[in-house]
Amino acid sequence: MTAPLNVAILGASGYTGSELVRLLARHPRAAIRALTADRKAGQAMADVFPQFAGLDLPRLVTIAELDLAGVDLVFCALPHGTTQTVIKDLFAKKPELKVVDLSADFRLTDPEAYATWYGHAHQALELQAEAAFGLVELNREAIRGARLVANPGCHSTTSILPVVPLLRAGLIDPANIVIVSSTGMSGAGRAAKEEMLFSEVSEGVHAYGVGKHRHTSELDQEFGKAAGRPSLATFTPQLIPMNRGIYANITVTLAAGATAERLHEALATTYAGEPFVQVLPFGKVPQSRHVRGSNNVQLGVIADRGPDRAIVISTLDNLVKGASGQAVQNMNLISGFPETEGLNQLAIFP
Amino acid sequence: MTAPLNVAILGASGYTGSELVRLLARHPRAAIRALTADRKAGQAMADVFPQFAGLDLPRLVTIAELDLAGVDLVFCALPHGTTQTVIKDLFAKKPELKVVDLSADFRLTDPEAYATWYGHAHQALELQAEAAFGLVELNREAIRGARLVANPGCHSTTSILPVVPLLRAGLIDPANIVIVSSTGMSGAGRAAKEEMLFSEVSEGVHAYGVGKHRHTSELDQEFGKAAGRPSLATFTPQLIPMNRGIYANITVTLAAGATAERLHEALATTYAGEPFVQVLPFGKVPQSRHVRGSNNVQLGVIADRGPDRAIVISTLDNLVKGASGQAVQNMNLISGFPETEGLNQLAIFP
Amino acid sequence: MTAPLNVAILGASGYTGSELVRLLARHPRAAIRALTADRKAGQAMADVFPQFAGLDLPRLVTIAELDLAGVDLVFCALPHGTTQTVIKDLFAKKPELKVVDLSADFRLTDPEAYATWYGHAHQALELQAEAAFGLVELNREAIRGARLVANPGCHSTTSILPVVPLLRAGLIDPANIVIVSSTGMSGAGRAAKEEMLFSEVSEGVHAYGVGKHRHTSELDQEFGKAAGRPSLATFTPQLIPMNRGIYANITVTLAAGATAERLHEALATTYAGEPFVQVLPFGKVPQSRHVRGSNNVQLGVIADRGPDRAIVISTLDNLVKGASGQAVQNMNLISGFPETEGLNQLAIFP
Amino acid sequence: MTAPLNVAILGASGYTGSELVRLLARHPRAAIRALTADRKAGQAMADVFPQFAGLDLPRLVTIAELDLAGVDLVFCALPHGTTQTVIKDLFAKKPELKVVDLSADFRLTDPEAYATWYGHAHQALELQAEAAFGLVELNREAIRGARLVANPGCHSTTSILPVVPLLRAGLIDPANIVIVSSTGMSGAGRAAKEEMLFSEVSEGVHAYGVGKHRHTSELDQEFGKAAGRPSLATFTPQLIPMNRGIYANITVTLAAGATAERLHEALATTYAGEPFVQVLPFGKVPQSRHVRGSNNVQLGVIADRGPDRAIVISTLDNLVKGASGQAVQNMNLISGFPETEGLNQLAIFP
Repeated sequence: MTAPLNVAILGASGYTGSELVRLLARHPRAAIRALTADRKAGQAMADVFPQFAGLDLPRLVTIAELDLAGVDLVFCALPHGTTQTVIKDLFAKKPELKVVDLSADFRLTDPEAYATWYGHAHQALELQAEAAFGLVELNREAIRGARLVANPGCHSTTSILPVVPLLRAGLIDPANIVIVSSTGMSGAGRAAKEEMLFSEVSEGVHAYGVGKHRHTSELDQEFGKAAGRPSLATFTPQLIPMNRGIYANITVTLAAGATAERLHEALATTYAGEPFVQVLPFGKVPQSRHVRGSNNVQLGVIADRGPDRAIVISTLDNLVKGASGQAVQNMNLISGFPETEGLNQLAIFP
Repeated sequence: MTAPLNVAILGASGYTGSELVRLLARHPRAAIRALTADRKAGQAMADVFPQFAGLDLPRLVTIAELDLAGVDLVFCALPHGTTQTVIKDLFAKKPELKVVDLSADFRLTDPEAYATWYGHAHQALELQAEAAFGLVELNREAIRGARLVANPGCHSTTSILPVVPLLRAGLIDPANIVIVSSTGMSGAGRAAKEEMLFSEVSEGVHAYGVGKHRHTSELDQEFGKAAGRPSLATFTPQLIPMNRGIYANITVTLAAGATAERLHEALATTYAGEPFVQVLPFGKVPQSRHVRGSNNVQLGVIADRGPDRAIVISTLDNLVKGASGQAVQNMNLISGFPETEGLNQLAIFP
Repeated sequence: MTAPLNVAILGASGYTGSELVRLLARHPRAAIRALTADRKAGQAMADVFPQFAGLDLPRLVTIAELDLAGVDLVFCALPHGTTQTVIKDLFAKKPELKVVDLSADFRLTDPEAYATWYGHAHQALELQAEAAFGLVELNREAIRGARLVANPGCHSTTSILPVVPLLRAGLIDPANIVIVSSTGMSGAGRAAKEEMLFSEVSEGVHAYGVGKHRHTSELDQEFGKAAGRPSLATFTPQLIPMNRGIYANITVTLAAGATAERLHEALATTYAGEPFVQVLPFGKVPQSRHVRGSNNVQLGVIADRGPDRAIVISTLDNLVKGASGQAVQNMNLISGFPETEGLNQLAIFP
Repeated sequence: MTAPLNVAILGASGYTGSELVRLLARHPRAAIRALTADRKAGQAMADVFPQFAGLDLPRLVTIAELDLAGVDLVFCALPHGTTQTVIKDLFAKKPELKVVDLSADFRLTDPEAYATWYGHAHQALELQAEAAFGLVELNREAIRGARLVANPGCHSTTSILPVVPLLRAGLIDPANIVIVSSTGMSGAGRAAKEEMLFSEVSEGVHAYGVGKHRHTSELDQEFGKAAGRPSLATFTPQLIPMNRGIYANITVTLAAGATAERLHEALATTYAGEPFVQVLPFGKVPQSRHVRGSNNVQLGVIADRGPDRAIVISTLDNLVKGASGQAVQNMNLISGFPETEGLNQLAIFP
């Protein structure tokens, strides 16, 4: 047995942090060496997440206390905005470190787009230039050699995976993409807010961030690149009463000569060899519960009754393929491990 | 006190049937005289729905046993398809009867459309010609004098209410309407089916009837009429884990010169005097939980980031304004009662 | 029409406050004259609870701004502990006021018990002596003449209603009562706390306050009074993933000569004329969903397989009969209105 | 690599069947050779459970079509009652087969108890005598050499694990055990029944099988054996709106001299070396969500306020440690594999 990869998780007291622990504690080639959580420093991880009772895990420390000496790779599961200076610091101390960042800080390659969507100038422009957009299936080669990987957003991953291949193939109109992306609650994190209380979420549904959700900027970037011209999809996220899962309902307008069947074929071909992407038979509708807890994405293509439209549906678990699972997949890739290592858990259904 | 209106409910053992009982048992001008439920005939209503324990209600009988002598108005909450012959029979026996039909049987005025969407020729064409489409706010005058009212579908009501005024005013493109309509489970009824089990519905979401849901035919009819030309909206229903509520996310393309604000204004004007329709302030996003258990509809209009699109959101309780509440509203209207009689319950939230 | 009763609601931005508005806005004899909410003062009620859009309600003010001039009765839905001085103040300003207090401050008649369970000496002892314990069905005469009514706790109401008549009749052993009381989330209020987030509550269950929940003190008081000697029930509340409902599973040991059937008979007799209490047929198991949204309580008695035990089940909606509905019932009683006025809504199921 | 253990799963279209597939498809030493499902024979497993799309699994066949030639071990996830003759047949064809039975058919060692609780004489008495009660932590040695293991019920496992050690140590009164065992819906299986519909289960709670649930017979057997005299616990299961999880709230009366702390100590000692049982610190309350999806059990002991009672809480995932996970643990044990093989998935929370 070779030495394991030593990893640290910054922001371990949030849901993406705990999900990283869930995956990495059982990963055959990684060893969790440090866990940070500024407000809960000093506590045992099992006090914060009792599902880890019995596991031998490092105690929570502050970021300031983090010792990088024995650490090869850092997962950064911190809030957007603060992350860029934290990571700059990490690389200043240890340039050979590898970092997989789960925040939004390094996802946008255009500094102006970043400033527009996030409301302030980026604080680590040189790193932004260097970061690889961590959607493995579509950007594998760029990621492989990267030191810093920007894990994409959960809504973004869900929609980019089916839409980009269709745009690359010229099969759909980039000017007429309508996405309604339903999400469970865990994507909003563990901070105590009134609108996240059980009684405010259960037995109901509501849209949020309509016309201005920040993941839209990632769609613009990736859709535009794929189409070869700007794309301005309509993107409406909505919150539904479940813990895990994103379900993107994507209505597309077919390019001249295209058919819904051709769309299906293009996706099936693109993802034929991918271990985590399953293109369902033409016309079959995915369900979010069938990917729950797994790193899988399920895609469906259904013809609309009119000749020029199709409905493309994409679903994944926002904490796994939409966040921590994808982060581990990125870790595997930049560490030279098999991409599925530690990620082959099957979905929990029911 | 004048004599009450004597009503019968056919199909009282289903969810729309029990919802009619909930509303009518407390209605100041109606008296429930008969309840039918073929498979549960002989049982007390409180055996089938224990929330009615303590209420004095007629015992369940079969339709064959129904005595029309003391009945002024019949609510028909039977499965689609069987209803048309049942109602034909009722009128044969008692032509002066009034009927509010909650099934789909009389919603489509075009017999060909009916045959296409429902797979068989209509069995009561003369009644179909006579039936009024029971969406009160948009068809009040036609309903007032009707003997037979076809209560519209729950998805249909949700989308027609906001879209038709916009089409009538020429503010949106009838050729480019994309609707994703999320619904709770109670709309599917009480029949035992595997896909309706708790474990198949909770903690997940999935679309159904994609490109072919029958409520689409009602949209075509009403949108086409309002636009003055055929409309072919893309309509995707999806099932989310809640009991009650429909939440239609409607992406519209603005007609030349229109703005999202103009759309909002048009809806606010249209529904200014309506007791059951609340147009929220411009930009505010409705939530389905805020209409739960009430006969209310809440509408919101939000600008998209691009200049030519807007998101219109409409939400209601599928068992109330989407079915039984609307049926009682129709009863009130054709009986000359105040329209809000028995329907002023406020929403249950949380 | 005589002049309405003018009411104020203190603490209108919480769930029991909004539930009072739901009931009182449709009450035929009450008029809502003031709503307070210190942190949300200045806002419209419909901003805080959008289900009230379209209703004509007073704007939220601070308690300091409250003008008692036009107010006959105050509902106090404030946090425990602060309430006693607020109410003392109210009576100092207007002694003829009537107050229904939904907090725990005046429920315990023994000041020492109060100090023990709540950790500080009571600040309004003379009022505590005066307050009536507001469980109408068991304390009607004392409440009728009261100026201050202490609305009992939701768990307490659920368990006291079935247990007290059995103790009074000497049918069960006061030393051997085991209660597991499952509750929905809305009873915990609207304050933002991590443990109340959707993801911390959905898809799971956990006990809380085991061996020390404060409602236990109300059980001790009422059970002891009914038994004529101290009772020390084991009371374990547990939180389950639903909004509304309390479901008390009460295992009792039969007194010599008693049978489960006799227990049932005693409850049926006690509650025969009560509009809000339904004793189900012997052996039938209640479900919390059958009282949801109503002021009803449903009781069941089931024989255990051994001869000396029975299971008594009691369920109600914690926000209605467990809080605001009971408060309105108390208002009706002390105002000389029919007890069911404004409270006859049937349960919402499904 | 040695040859894998070849397994067949009978009843693969139910939830315990699919859970076996989830675990065994990733088990390093097992290979799934056959899947039966009489009514769905001919279908691919991924048609019945789409979460398995992309996995290479045998097609569903009928039991009659099952070829035992290449099969070493059979998991029997069939309905109670039919199983005993099926297994008798299997052994008749292949005596050296090993069988882990997830039904109730072989759990009761006393044929009379079986007849009483199940309403008919047992059809395979000689096998019943031979079967080992498959609760590994408490019966490891007997299981190790068995050819037929009777996997215990989900409620039974949850309660037996904490109660039996306390009875063996004489710390609690066997005559006064009160269990309220809350369960999620998945334990009821996938058969379409009205009372299992989403709308009948969500947003509510109800007890079922009160005083007569069949798992009670397993408690009687194991509690009686541990106490050395008959035990007649009061056992009330209740259904709560979640998919997975059992949560047993066990109120015990302490034996003379015992304390809640001693109970805790006894459990901590008993389960000190057990990989799947975690005894939480004294006074800490378990939550079912912290074992969701894992083979873990979490136990808590909390003192009641009176001196002679304690509350013991036990929770597990009914489909894993309560069914299929325990079955795999039994498979590991009788196959000579490490007991945790294939079972080390951490809980999914949130």
